[in-house]
Amino acid sequence: MSISKNLNSNNMSLTYKILAKNLLKGELKAGNEIAVRVHQTLTQDSTGTMAYLQLNAMDVDKVATEISVAYVDHNMLQSSFENADDHEFIKTSAEKHNIVFSKPGNGICHRLHLERFGKPGKILIGSDSHTPTGGGLGMLAIGAGGLDVAIGMARGLYYLKVPKVYNIELRGKLQPWVSAKDVILYVLKQLTVKGGVGYVMEYTGDGIKSLSVEDRATITNMGAELGATTSIFPSDEYTKIFLEKQSRGDDFIELLPDENAFYDDKLVVNLDELVPLAAFPHSPDNVHKIPKDKKLKVDQIAIGSCTNSSYSDFMKLAAILDGKKVHPDVSLVLSPGSSNIMKMISENGALAKFIAAGARLLEAACGPCIGMGQAPKTDGISLRTFNRNFKGRCGTMSAGVYLVSTETAAASAITGYLTDPRELGAEIIVEEPEKFEISDNYFIFPNPNEEEAKREREAVKIVMGPNIKPFPIGEELKDSITRKVILKTGDNITTDDICPSNAALLPFRSNIPKLSEHCFETIIPDFKERAEKNNGGIVVGGENYGQGSSREHAALLPLYLGIKAVIAKSFARIHKANLINSGIIPLEFENVEDYDKIDEYDELQLSDILNSLVNGRFIIKNITKNTEFPAKFNGSERELKILKFGGYLKFATSDEFLS
Amino acid sequence: MSISKNLNSNNMSLTYKILAKNLLKGELKAGNEIAVRVHQTLTQDSTGTMAYLQLNAMDVDKVATEISVAYVDHNMLQSSFENADDHEFIKTSAEKHNIVFSKPGNGICHRLHLERFGKPGKILIGSDSHTPTGGGLGMLAIGAGGLDVAIGMARGLYYLKVPKVYNIELRGKLQPWVSAKDVILYVLKQLTVKGGVGYVMEYTGDGIKSLSVEDRATITNMGAELGATTSIFPSDEYTKIFLEKQSRGDDFIELLPDENAFYDDKLVVNLDELVPLAAFPHSPDNVHKIPKDKKLKVDQIAIGSCTNSSYSDFMKLAAILDGKKVHPDVSLVLSPGSSNIMKMISENGALAKFIAAGARLLEAACGPCIGMGQAPKTDGISLRTFNRNFKGRCGTMSAGVYLVSTETAAASAITGYLTDPRELGAEIIVEEPEKFEISDNYFIFPNPNEEEAKREREAVKIVMGPNIKPFPIGEELKDSITRKVILKTGDNITTDDICPSNAALLPFRSNIPKLSEHCFETIIPDFKERAEKNNGGIVVGGENYGQGSSREHAALLPLYLGIKAVIAKSFARIHKANLINSGIIPLEFENVEDYDKIDEYDELQLSDILNSLVNGRFIIKNITKNTEFPAKFNGSERELKILKFGGYLKFATSDEFLS
Repeated sequence: MSISKNLNSNNMSLTYKILAKNLLKGELKAGNEIAVRVHQTLTQDSTGTMAYLQLNAMDVDKVATEISVAYVDHNMLQSSFENADDHEFIKTSAEKHNIVFSKPGNGICHRLHLERFGKPGKILIGSDSHTPTGGGLGMLAIGAGGLDVAIGMARGLYYLKVPKVYNIELRGKLQPWVSAKDVILYVLKQLTVKGGVGYVMEYTGDGIKSLSVEDRATITNMGAELGATTSIFPSDEYTKIFLEKQSRGDDFIELLPDENAFYDDKLVVNLDELVPLAAFPHSPDNVHKIPKDKKLKVDQIAIGSCTNSSYSDFMKLAAILDGKKVHPDVSLVLSPGSSNIMKMISENGALAKFIAAGARLLEAACGPCIGMGQAPKTDGISLRTFNRNFKGRCGTMSAGVYLVSTETAAASAITGYLTDPRELGAEIIVEEPEKFEISDNYFIFPNPNEEEAKREREAVKIVMGPNIKPFPIGEELKDSITRKVILKTGDNITTDDICPSNAALLPFRSNIPKLSEHCFETIIPDFKERAEKNNGGIVVGGENYGQGSSREHAALLPLYLGIKAVIAKSFARIHKANLINSGIIPLEFENVEDYDKIDEYDELQLSDILNSLVNGRFIIKNITKNTEFPAKFNGSERELKILKFGGYLKFATSDEFLS
Repeated sequence: MSISKNLNSNNMSLTYKILAKNLLKGELKAGNEIAVRVHQTLTQDSTGTMAYLQLNAMDVDKVATEISVAYVDHNMLQSSFENADDHEFIKTSAEKHNIVFSKPGNGICHRLHLERFGKPGKILIGSDSHTPTGGGLGMLAIGAGGLDVAIGMARGLYYLKVPKVYNIELRGKLQPWVSAKDVILYVLKQLTVKGGVGYVMEYTGDGIKSLSVEDRATITNMGAELGATTSIFPSDEYTKIFLEKQSRGDDFIELLPDENAFYDDKLVVNLDELVPLAAFPHSPDNVHKIPKDKKLKVDQIAIGSCTNSSYSDFMKLAAILDGKKVHPDVSLVLSPGSSNIMKMISENGALAKFIAAGARLLEAACGPCIGMGQAPKTDGISLRTFNRNFKGRCGTMSAGVYLVSTETAAASAITGYLTDPRELGAEIIVEEPEKFEISDNYFIFPNPNEEEAKREREAVKIVMGPNIKPFPIGEELKDSITRKVILKTGDNITTDDICPSNAALLPFRSNIPKLSEHCFETIIPDFKERAEKNNGGIVVGGENYGQGSSREHAALLPLYLGIKAVIAKSFARIHKANLINSGIIPLEFENVEDYDKIDEYDELQLSDILNSLVNGRFIIKNITKNTEFPAKFNGSERELKILKFGGYLKFATSDEFLS
């Protein structure tokens, strides 16, 4: 291992400092694959069942990390037995491997992890695309597929392509009624949902001094929508204050980029000039100012999610709603980020104000953000403080979801239409508490006495309910593949398109056969039938294929249905890794115009596969059209081996990996 | 109209006093059908959509009652668009007809109605079987089918068969850790789920003095499980205190039975001797003492529902949980009965204690009681303070649900097994507040200015989402029917069997065609196919056919599928009325042994139907077996007309009814 010669001890970005300090394999140079130490992992329940199936298959006693936490925050409606069975499976899997278990009701993984476990300078990987929330604390917090996280737990390392670093310099100070959410909405407007691909977004500038850790976490959280590897803020005096208030002052270290840090790209944001913004349907980068002329009537307003569910968010809401009434035509639903926040706002009277105003209080969980309840009415307009507004994600295909700040949401709850919060008049000041609440009663911690803990681990029986099915395993690589293009998609296909996520389907995240019936359902009704009829196949995609959630189900479903390769204009980072981890070959068009020359049901032939992978270039034959076109394989040596073995799990348990 | 000669001014039960005062038609004599004035109605959303479809079809401007309230408390998970569409339909239907609308989040209909609108001496009908909750206030509160409630709203009257009166005399005083829930569990143990059929349960005795209105409401609420028409307590000084604390002192009137009141039956309960009880799976009358020898490990504990979600329930829980931790293996879920209770326990610190202990807080709604979320894990054991534990109702077919008091539930939450709360030691004393909280912000009240209100009503456009389908309409009576017995059931078939109720199906309560696919699903998988193949048919049932929930869907589904008659050993009251209202003939075996002589797919012939209905006796021919058997029709003249017209809606809009 080594560090690129362009980098030296006085021009390091914060990102590269952390990577350099924890480098285990490879050269730290943008584009290279490296292995880094993993200090912490997190899972949530909808991706976690798969991650623990994989961890359990790897036959390790205890995790190799400093701390691993298994949260339950997604599938909490429990409309049938599946959810509670998953919870029990995760709980017993956690107990089996020295993992902290967070009971349902405790809160959203990212909020809780920020509150209780995140540490500046550490590397966290999490099986959720919003893991970058931890970047608000100055840690390198990266979303990854479940299998990557399972291997992180088992082996204590994580492979990634060294990102470039995008500097976002914040200047000035946020004006009244403008907040951190508006910052990230502005960045999304500038850079789009593809703008961060291949980058870590690193925030600097005097503007960060007006942002608390919670504000920063809102920004790093929703930075996931840029397609970035992660986002990070320095760890400074504000980080120290936050950690001290969380009774974790000892976890603080100062971490700043070098003064002349090298950045690959740069965006300057003048906070002084920022105004309240909203992402209109159906993309987080479809950002506009709040219209003054046209009053958009609103049916539902939802405040919460890992983006905007902090103590400050709810205290702002309390200040705005105090003595007011929710508009009769609006359903205002609130989901605090953690039980600790719930307790604080309960004790200080904020919660009583919400109820007095006529709000609905949901559990401390992801809730409506993942379509787990609170679907709006047909053609309904919903304002949400969340991070994604993909079509149908809210549970209602015809609904329009607008992503806004808590201030905008609160103002609109009173008026009944999308409202610029500056109309509310005088600024509100929300003070953070002296100390944040801390509760251990929803956590199940491993026994600190290692001897006892070992005995306890051995005694644990992992409980697998009838809905939990084995995950599919890839086949060893063949040297030639001939299959039909059974689907050709447009740009920006999300993992929600590949593996739909809604209240009806989330209970089946541990049941790939069942879930595969819904693969690509938002695009075509019969993907499974097509795959069955054609002995699997190949998918052709556009730009940014596989953006959105980190769910590896978006690779496991195609694997289960016999998809051998995906050829796209470009890939979202996590999904591409998930495809490789599953043994599906991700290829990129060398010439994007070749995309237009392929039709659905064309028969393609990939030959001399092993050599083509090594060379990074395929010549693909279109048998139907009797043409050829080139495609790139952009993967590391390790990824090539994964494909050869037929998946990461097979490789990670091989002698070759362990040696 | 007249009053039976056996009754006079000094031997009247409270029940008969209220009936007599509000008698509109018929003779007040047990078994006779009478019409009484309806002062109040309530609907909830899962039965309400149908009731408002029916009301809207009747072309009335404003309701004929003193107050009608449309609550939303059932379908609040909103996993897809259907729920929110139903809410909007109900809201606009309410606005169209001068009905108070209670927004989702406000709480459970029965709790809210008790708090805000119930009045001693008034007659309330509600499209929910637990409407008798209001009996705790000394009102005659009767559960009815949606159509009966729609007609109650439109015409201000309600037809019922005059019940007998069962006196439950409570003597002595509840001992520490024994509560109102244990009283009704004890009564259920003595009388069974059929014991109340044809009766109003009227509570008297010195024992009622140790019971608050909330305690009384727990008893009258779960009295529904006895199959009773309703249950009622006197209105006395405790009623006065309750109403004053609800800022409704003016609504109080004293109402007591005459000292020598005539009762048809009597049960004496010695409160001094009562101990904590539990209804074991899968029936509310399968009541046992809490086992001392065998520790039953518990996976889930749920506190709430219209039975035990009062302020006192949650304050007891707070006292017991204070400083304690929920057992790591237990998921403790709480759903307060109303937003007012939520606000009170939030302000007084109780809620913070629940969170500190590690509990899950759900919305103020029916929630898990109706299977709307929180399904236990496979084979899970769930203790619930609810009123029903029918197999599968919780959402998990293999789970075992135990019905217990709040005290028992709270004690068990700490220990992790079914625990007699007396093990907790010293008694806890919970004081009611000086004043109960009152919030109007979840209600939409009609404009009090009648001129403006009329204009507003006219301006309302009723919004019907795509899932809301027209209800089926019966056919005019034919004089002969020949159909096969497409299903023969055992005893105690519930309306949950006929129209399954779970989180997946509840959104379709306004869509009979869709719901009909699941008719009798808990018993056979192919009822719909059987009906389609055989051009409808006849159902043969055992004792107490149609017990449980009041949902008229249990009649509308069979109507939609072409069921012409149900022949049973006996019927539950509301369901029988719902069958007649739908135009399906309910017949009772004259000789119960004839039940054994019928097999599924026997072809039965009902002939000379009109005369048989008039005479109350059918001779039914079993064509397959070439035999005959007699069956009774036990219905009023009005019910005969309903069947003749092909349903109550047709009759109620006919000149004959209106004249």
